[in-house]
Amino acid sequence: MDVDQRSLSAEAESEVLKVIAEFAATWNRHDMDAMHDLCTDDAEWINIVGMHWRGKAAVYKGHDALHKTTFADTEMTIEDVKARAIAPGVVCAVAGMTFGAHVDPTGREEVGMETMGTYLLLDTGDSWKIVHFHNTVIDQAARPFDPVNSDSAIG
Amino acid sequence: MDVDQRSLSAEAESEVLKVIAEFAATWNRHDMDAMHDLCTDDAEWINIVGMHWRGKAAVYKGHDALHKTTFADTEMTIEDVKARAIAPGVVCAVAGMTFGAHVDPTGREEVGMETMGTYLLLDTGDSWKIVHFHNTVIDQAARPFDPVNSDSAIG
Repeated sequence: MDVDQRSLSAEAESEVLKVIAEFAATWNRHDMDAMHDLCTDDAEWINIVGMHWRGKAAVYKGHDALHKTTFADTEMTIEDVKARAIAPGVVCAVAGMTFGAHVDPTGREEVGMETMGTYLLLDTGDSWKIVHFHNTVIDQAARPFDPVNSDSAIG
Repeated sequence: MDVDQRSLSAEAESEVLKVIAEFAATWNRHDMDAMHDLCTDDAEWINIVGMHWRGKAAVYKGHDALHKTTFADTEMTIEDVKARAIAPGVVCAVAGMTFGAHVDPTGREEVGMETMGTYLLLDTGDSWKIVHFHNTVIDQAARPFDPVNSDSAIG
């Protein structure tokens, strides 16, 4: 793949950031229809507990259940989005996310967490859509032991 | 993006599966050079504790440190790889992974874990390479509460 084909245009970056901001907005108002309009039909989702949902209908079903229970009163933020081009029409963005207090389905009370999310987006012609998402909780105990970024994590 | 452009050829699938199998093989013999030859120069990595490494040199540094300590005597497996085409020359694969017993950098003893990994691969012309990886521990307590796949998880 020619390196030139992998440069991220300002226009593409702007579009991708808009989609991710809209994802946060729709998540926070629990608008499942609008939230999943941002996804391709074949979107896949891997959440912080390792559940893997395949296809928009499955992703919708999973989110709909969690937003009626676990996340019904939770606030989510997305910040520090770092986007890069993977190929023409394909962008991979990594972002820090926060999830406010909630009780998870097993009954565990979470006071809140930071996560690291990967958004893979595709230019469908009409718009950019999320084709894959993967999220992981940032383990605060492990953070100071990061062999690469330990300074910034401790600081 | 034309749907026809997103079909996964048998040849591409075979190549991608080979790269992922080779990743497991090099990981298990702790061969950092061969393992990172499988990555693009701009590869990014998000591991199970949410550390985010950007660029092959950083990914190498992070793995090298963990493979000399945490994972020095650990076995890792990759199974049930589900690959799909995202765009021409771009494949996203999701796989179940297992990590054997180890002591993590904070001193916690882990008897072993299952994770869900996302591999994003790019056809560089000469070969397919890993351009992005993201991994999450499967929370076994949460698994029966999966709104989409609960039956198969319990069974």
